[in-house]
Amino acid sequence: MLSGTMAQDFCVGDLSGAQTPAGFPCKKVAQVTVSDFVFSGLAKAGNTSNIIKAAVTPAFVNQFPAVNGLGISAARLDIAPGGVVPLHTHPAASEFLVVTQGTIAAGFITSSNDVYYTTLRKGDAMVFPQGLLHYQINAGGVTAVAIVSFSSPSPGLQITPIALFGNDLPSALVEAVTFLDDAEVKRLKKVLGGSG
Amino acid sequence: MLSGTMAQDFCVGDLSGAQTPAGFPCKKVAQVTVSDFVFSGLAKAGNTSNIIKAAVTPAFVNQFPAVNGLGISAARLDIAPGGVVPLHTHPAASEFLVVTQGTIAAGFITSSNDVYYTTLRKGDAMVFPQGLLHYQINAGGVTAVAIVSFSSPSPGLQITPIALFGNDLPSALVEAVTFLDDAEVKRLKKVLGGSG
Amino acid sequence: MLSGTMAQDFCVGDLSGAQTPAGFPCKKVAQVTVSDFVFSGLAKAGNTSNIIKAAVTPAFVNQFPAVNGLGISAARLDIAPGGVVPLHTHPAASEFLVVTQGTIAAGFITSSNDVYYTTLRKGDAMVFPQGLLHYQINAGGVTAVAIVSFSSPSPGLQITPIALFGNDLPSALVEAVTFLDDAEVKRLKKVLGGSG
Amino acid sequence: MLSGTMAQDFCVGDLSGAQTPAGFPCKKVAQVTVSDFVFSGLAKAGNTSNIIKAAVTPAFVNQFPAVNGLGISAARLDIAPGGVVPLHTHPAASEFLVVTQGTIAAGFITSSNDVYYTTLRKGDAMVFPQGLLHYQINAGGVTAVAIVSFSSPSPGLQITPIALFGNDLPSALVEAVTFLDDAEVKRLKKVLGGSG
Amino acid sequence: MLSGTMAQDFCVGDLSGAQTPAGFPCKKVAQVTVSDFVFSGLAKAGNTSNIIKAAVTPAFVNQFPAVNGLGISAARLDIAPGGVVPLHTHPAASEFLVVTQGTIAAGFITSSNDVYYTTLRKGDAMVFPQGLLHYQINAGGVTAVAIVSFSSPSPGLQITPIALFGNDLPSALVEAVTFLDDAEVKRLKKVLGGSG
Amino acid sequence: MLSGTMAQDFCVGDLSGAQTPAGFPCKKVAQVTVSDFVFSGLAKAGNTSNIIKAAVTPAFVNQFPAVNGLGISAARLDIAPGGVVPLHTHPAASEFLVVTQGTIAAGFITSSNDVYYTTLRKGDAMVFPQGLLHYQINAGGVTAVAIVSFSSPSPGLQITPIALFGNDLPSALVEAVTFLDDAEVKRLKKVLGGSG
Repeated sequence: MLSGTMAQDFCVGDLSGAQTPAGFPCKKVAQVTVSDFVFSGLAKAGNTSNIIKAAVTPAFVNQFPAVNGLGISAARLDIAPGGVVPLHTHPAASEFLVVTQGTIAAGFITSSNDVYYTTLRKGDAMVFPQGLLHYQINAGGVTAVAIVSFSSPSPGLQITPIALFGNDLPSALVEAVTFLDDAEVKRLKKVLGGSG
Repeated sequence: MLSGTMAQDFCVGDLSGAQTPAGFPCKKVAQVTVSDFVFSGLAKAGNTSNIIKAAVTPAFVNQFPAVNGLGISAARLDIAPGGVVPLHTHPAASEFLVVTQGTIAAGFITSSNDVYYTTLRKGDAMVFPQGLLHYQINAGGVTAVAIVSFSSPSPGLQITPIALFGNDLPSALVEAVTFLDDAEVKRLKKVLGGSG
Repeated sequence: MLSGTMAQDFCVGDLSGAQTPAGFPCKKVAQVTVSDFVFSGLAKAGNTSNIIKAAVTPAFVNQFPAVNGLGISAARLDIAPGGVVPLHTHPAASEFLVVTQGTIAAGFITSSNDVYYTTLRKGDAMVFPQGLLHYQINAGGVTAVAIVSFSSPSPGLQITPIALFGNDLPSALVEAVTFLDDAEVKRLKKVLGGSG
Repeated sequence: MLSGTMAQDFCVGDLSGAQTPAGFPCKKVAQVTVSDFVFSGLAKAGNTSNIIKAAVTPAFVNQFPAVNGLGISAARLDIAPGGVVPLHTHPAASEFLVVTQGTIAAGFITSSNDVYYTTLRKGDAMVFPQGLLHYQINAGGVTAVAIVSFSSPSPGLQITPIALFGNDLPSALVEAVTFLDDAEVKRLKKVLGGSG
Repeated sequence: MLSGTMAQDFCVGDLSGAQTPAGFPCKKVAQVTVSDFVFSGLAKAGNTSNIIKAAVTPAFVNQFPAVNGLGISAARLDIAPGGVVPLHTHPAASEFLVVTQGTIAAGFITSSNDVYYTTLRKGDAMVFPQGLLHYQINAGGVTAVAIVSFSSPSPGLQITPIALFGNDLPSALVEAVTFLDDAEVKRLKKVLGGSG
Repeated sequence: MLSGTMAQDFCVGDLSGAQTPAGFPCKKVAQVTVSDFVFSGLAKAGNTSNIIKAAVTPAFVNQFPAVNGLGISAARLDIAPGGVVPLHTHPAASEFLVVTQGTIAAGFITSSNDVYYTTLRKGDAMVFPQGLLHYQINAGGVTAVAIVSFSSPSPGLQITPIALFGNDLPSALVEAVTFLDDAEVKRLKKVLGGSG
């Protein structure tokens, strides 16, 4: 009659297989169970005992292979008082943020160099267009939490100060391409673990 | 030097313009302010005083035009005790659900007629692949709340029993294409507002 | 001079390889012959001696691997007098139907709960937008035949009554998410092979 | 409760509006009726009383605006005995052909300069990958008919001999880019209506 | 016979129309001439008499409307001795660079914080993946020139130091999201025209 | 803190792996070096000592695996005096051409059978929409050189006269689908290496 064997409804990623531009190969359907589609990693607060007093807990394809090929993923942000998710971009996705606790000051900068920033309270949502620089800062006295979702299973996360100061790109190069002075670059390389 | 006038970073929808297959025309950038990128409609609990004891509060492109063209949108689910989001599909998007309060029994059915269902607690996430039948049911004693995000600014929402019984599709036709008996179709047409 | 070795014009699916979100890996071009691009399975009438008096004969990527990656596939519908292709969706594709024999009553239901239905005669075409519930019924005295094509090599096929009553989703759950009564759900589970 | 006003399920093209790279603007849903989704133009045989003894009857977005944005379209081929659909490409789509009457010799040529050709009988299907040169010839004694579908609402159709000889591209230019001799180019310009 | 009126081969942008997520509406074909498809703006050296001793001359959709909807655009880089195209991203495109004169030191930084950099001579090509931070520096004694192409008609260009210091984002905010000290931020705001 | 291990920024093609519709599997990031992202093959003039006095030097995914999945590639054209890149199409990409030396007469033909052609001088750019027939001819006294880029890592290249006369498609078939006479087809089969 009407066979049910003719479809590819999902493609839970087999992380042991070779990635392609469209994602990971699919786990065999016979081995897929409901637990593949469930992710509990966002339930727990991230550890904010760090230099930025903040944590990003991703549910990207590498952590949650069920989103492979589905055009979506998510993450949890925890930002302690005084904490900040520094300036960053997601090279491959737009971001939809919903505050679930506390208050967050957030903003983004466009290619036209315009700045859009505001303060978000519990329940407020904000969207950050693909690839643009943006940030989130705790703007209240308690830890702020947000659920952020992305228009890609693998949005990427490039944190600008870490990209600038947290690797071995030579200081002279960093200075040439940012106009920052030598002392400041070297100071921040020490703070953020870079060398060169 | 380096002009900032060369980009289209975003396209806040002008809902008064004619929609296209790719979304709405863009509001002029000069008229865009940060408030365009912020949506407060998810902050408030939906009204669950209805037949399903549940509410879906969307932040799709029609409610939140900033997501136009960005490949993402979201919604808030409120499900009172005993409530249910009935069997439904999103024709144009996959869904990523995060429980922010309470307990939800959720599941989906595939083209191969397999069923994946489970119970989700606060903080748990589940992904529902594009276009497949799925549901959410309150599985605890308190109102459950979830943030759901979608891989499209306009995911669509087709609720199966309402599609079957909540319009004027003739009863004989409904019976022919579902195998349901006449009495049951007519009973549910009355319950759900259909005629014919 | 001008080498012909620089292109990927097609990607006949190697069904023994691991599927990816974009389809199957490609069969080596050296092993591809013209017979890979030809499919004879639509030539023969489907067997309509079944409960729905209808048959769907697919030429999806699993049956006709040449369509892998090409954004298209097709199927043949045979609907005997009194027969019906029950309410169903294709989660991943729009459908273009052309009646090649007989008369078909067809319709679809939108997310807005509007219904579009009509009767199609030989030569008539109708398009069913992606992911929406639709059906086809023989509306004449002879077997009706249609060629249907899809905007994906793997459109999927989710038949609503089989999804509801043809698997082991517990009856109580089915009732909760559809408003159907217990007797009717149990009756149809028996008819359509479900349990629970 | 559950609003049905939040979706864009389809986008019937408003051909009077300005086209965009994604298609035409959408006709207002309130003005859409079921007749928008039905096309009767493929029911009638094309007129094959012409130089190629063949006819292509399209149901592309310009003829059948309901396919706008849906990633699919179709056409009917009629090829009288001795007739031919000359060498051509569809710049924007793959093609899926099903023979519904008669016998067709068909083939395509790849970027690697390989040739795949065969003879198709009633019910046989063949797929032609996007953008590649292909042809169809009547290979029997009666008019052959085929339903062809495309992976785009606007596949395009570029017929090579008409592109070469049916416009005002100067003969010297045609000769330079094809290696054809002057007499043959001028002879065919006369046959196919070109000048220069 | 075979009509040539059934296609949308291109969509030269009508910049006076309202942009959509897929680009501008199409100029009417009757008004399109070959000059629409030709752009002479890359022929002339950009003016490098500026703070970065470099110039980017774009042929994006806003300058060259013929690329609208075609998935490609280009630009010319001129970098005088001592000049630099500072750290920047293209939010919506990958970049393919070909050096046509001089020597360029170029590099990019990944989401994983890895750095890939090298020195390119005349004729060398380098690719920069979508959305990642990258730079180009004159590494020779003469003006360097490159042709860069992009996988989008509207790639965007976000220059990090200008995004940080060339607008009115408050200094305290810049410091919070970058770890830079107050003096350095204020120094660079003066250099690059920012306020706040 | 903020892990850098969560992204797929690029996917350098592993040409030894099985291709998919989306490209090759990715080389492991640990084995990727900056030299993967650099291609020197466009630096050297192509050999124009051939029948067309022209050379196309590709930097497609097969030659430059770093473009895998990035939506872009490029090539170098060398056209000696009297040389020509014959009529051809790229089935899967639009082309952006920049003249870097000499003078080139170029043109393309549309589905509507319109012809757009002109003469390009050093620095001029021209765009050729996807899948349409086009050509380039040296229009000056010195070798012309152009950098061409494509909106796909694997654009394909189908040269019409070679597709017609450079393989074993039987002469009678070629004549039937092109209207060319037998003598001319056989003459060109000899010139271009075809048989049959």
